[in-house]
Amino acid sequence: MIGFLTDWGLKSHYVGVAKAVIKRINPTAEIIDITHEIEPFNVRKASHVLYRATLDFPPSTVFLVVVDYGVGTSRKAIVMKTKNDQIFVAPDNGVLTVVAEEYGVSEIREIENRDLFYRKNPSFTFHGRDIFAPVAAHLDMGLPMEKIGERLLSYEVLKMKKPHIDENRVIGEVAIIDTFGNVSTNIPYEMFAGMGVDFDDIVKIKVGKKEFKATVTKAFGDVEIGEFLVHPDSAGFLEIAVNLGNASKLLSVKEGDEIAICK
Amino acid sequence: MIGFLTDWGLKSHYVGVAKAVIKRINPTAEIIDITHEIEPFNVRKASHVLYRATLDFPPSTVFLVVVDYGVGTSRKAIVMKTKNDQIFVAPDNGVLTVVAEEYGVSEIREIENRDLFYRKNPSFTFHGRDIFAPVAAHLDMGLPMEKIGERLLSYEVLKMKKPHIDENRVIGEVAIIDTFGNVSTNIPYEMFAGMGVDFDDIVKIKVGKKEFKATVTKAFGDVEIGEFLVHPDSAGFLEIAVNLGNASKLLSVKEGDEIAICK
Amino acid sequence: MIGFLTDWGLKSHYVGVAKAVIKRINPTAEIIDITHEIEPFNVRKASHVLYRATLDFPPSTVFLVVVDYGVGTSRKAIVMKTKNDQIFVAPDNGVLTVVAEEYGVSEIREIENRDLFYRKNPSFTFHGRDIFAPVAAHLDMGLPMEKIGERLLSYEVLKMKKPHIDENRVIGEVAIIDTFGNVSTNIPYEMFAGMGVDFDDIVKIKVGKKEFKATVTKAFGDVEIGEFLVHPDSAGFLEIAVNLGNASKLLSVKEGDEIAICK
Repeated sequence: MIGFLTDWGLKSHYVGVAKAVIKRINPTAEIIDITHEIEPFNVRKASHVLYRATLDFPPSTVFLVVVDYGVGTSRKAIVMKTKNDQIFVAPDNGVLTVVAEEYGVSEIREIENRDLFYRKNPSFTFHGRDIFAPVAAHLDMGLPMEKIGERLLSYEVLKMKKPHIDENRVIGEVAIIDTFGNVSTNIPYEMFAGMGVDFDDIVKIKVGKKEFKATVTKAFGDVEIGEFLVHPDSAGFLEIAVNLGNASKLLSVKEGDEIAICK
Repeated sequence: MIGFLTDWGLKSHYVGVAKAVIKRINPTAEIIDITHEIEPFNVRKASHVLYRATLDFPPSTVFLVVVDYGVGTSRKAIVMKTKNDQIFVAPDNGVLTVVAEEYGVSEIREIENRDLFYRKNPSFTFHGRDIFAPVAAHLDMGLPMEKIGERLLSYEVLKMKKPHIDENRVIGEVAIIDTFGNVSTNIPYEMFAGMGVDFDDIVKIKVGKKEFKATVTKAFGDVEIGEFLVHPDSAGFLEIAVNLGNASKLLSVKEGDEIAICK
Repeated sequence: MIGFLTDWGLKSHYVGVAKAVIKRINPTAEIIDITHEIEPFNVRKASHVLYRATLDFPPSTVFLVVVDYGVGTSRKAIVMKTKNDQIFVAPDNGVLTVVAEEYGVSEIREIENRDLFYRKNPSFTFHGRDIFAPVAAHLDMGLPMEKIGERLLSYEVLKMKKPHIDENRVIGEVAIIDTFGNVSTNIPYEMFAGMGVDFDDIVKIKVGKKEFKATVTKAFGDVEIGEFLVHPDSAGFLEIAVNLGNASKLLSVKEGDEIAICK
């Protein structure tokens, strides 16, 4: 199975031709779109979305991850195998930061074997089609890692505000804002609950100098319409939402912003 | 075949992980996206879109329908079989109103069998992945209805303005506004034609106190650019459109609004 | 393999039901979405996008192309086979202009055989579902061209500004603007390079009376952030971009506008 994540959008033909290239090599490939609507160049958000998606894909899934602002520059193209036996084909620009940290890295290879390319002389601007997609197609058919290229000992890592507890508050960053405006953080819900917080408690959300009251709940409907709630999201992280409303707009936050929740 | 309809959008990884969960259970499942861009929580519109889609899917299709503003509250999760032998997996919040009314209900079960769940202890917020998707995967493999849970005798129904004729006008509601701004109603075209209206006739559209003239046509191109037309849509309902224009903007209507067409 | 291109958007159920109709006829059909987000009625852009997509699809692909502002009028429905052995199912409204010109036409048939239709009496407004999709499904299963209908000797052609060199400048039109605002032209990069231009040269972009300086590069990252560059796009055409910026907004151009690049 190939999980496919990009920032290409669905208005262009890019996603379609990358799939056609995969199918030319690997006609029975099962390709599942994770999303193609990461905001252009938002490697940080892509890194969080990718990790959450991997939680529900089977081991041995090959993830084709192309959020690649540096296409055509000297950034490397890599394949990373993590300790949970998932495989990631991506530019080496930090987009694998979260999966590498959460699962641990088992092996990294630089993509060098031109026999795997769609074109021996790939375009300068569309490595997604010319390099990453065909390599993912071959890996999904069982190509051994050592056929990819030389082993690498390091890879690019994004700086993130590591979630931590400071007295009576837990601090982290905004990881993902979804279509509904729900604000998911990189704070594991267990870390938050470990401060002794329970369902129905009232907590304070701090963003910069602004504060907002929220109820700790299981479900959106447990607070009045328009009120803030804090709850475990579907991947186990602390999420801030508003019942039938848009939390990100009310908080004025974007991905990467620091956020604190006070008991 | 699984027909898949949600309000999750395509910016998040939600649709992708629900498909991954289906494929883990049912690797050869044929999943066809109906749409994932129902406006958040718009159960009424989803109910109309679902019915129109079902008309072109084969009998025995399993429809996975997750427009679920009440996730985590006490609303039930159900499977409904209709008399045309299609199967619907959905929250019991009225989203099945139109298919139930149009086809008739053959059997309803509450989803209770935790052996079918993706996780024995499902998340509070993502029943789409944890409950509805795996149940649809099993049903598509032939799981008998009685394995789902207890039989239910009733289900939630949305109040809708039933289409009817009042003297020289037909009255109903706006069902679906599409990308082009075409305004499809819940009025069967046959009911409208039954008033003695024929192609090329001029009729009046009434929205609140405003009136608009329109020509009854077969095709968009049969009126001048920018002019209103009334015609049978692709599902057999009366639709209002503007040749190369946006009817919903010119009429200032949204889904659920009452609308009348006068002879 | 069926490559599927429309202007229907993904908010409606139209794409889903067309796929359901294909699968009812041809259950193992491999359908790959090229895009469904061509701006409504933009036949010119669709014609360029289609050609670029075809470059990466295998021979014998059937392309289902429904950008059809004239549905229900007297425009013909056709199947075109090009000299590279790809097959196109489309309205005869000019949307095949670029593929016909680039590959050469081998055979054109008017779609007349009602046995192939989804409904013997197709709707007036959704030929995509009722005529084009089922015909594509049959062709993908090997239906011979002569079963479609009578041979046609001509087809609709869009007028385009043919790319050409005039002294020290190359002139053409804006073909495609993508999600990132990159402006791809219909000027083959080889024609531009043939004027004696090389990487790192500075050239002038002329749009109407405005001029912009740009660097000829291989990659976006080879110029400073916010600066213009000119480079070969992934399909071999001259493209104008801005490093981490939006070229189409800065140039104020839309598809079809004339554009010149001066040495």
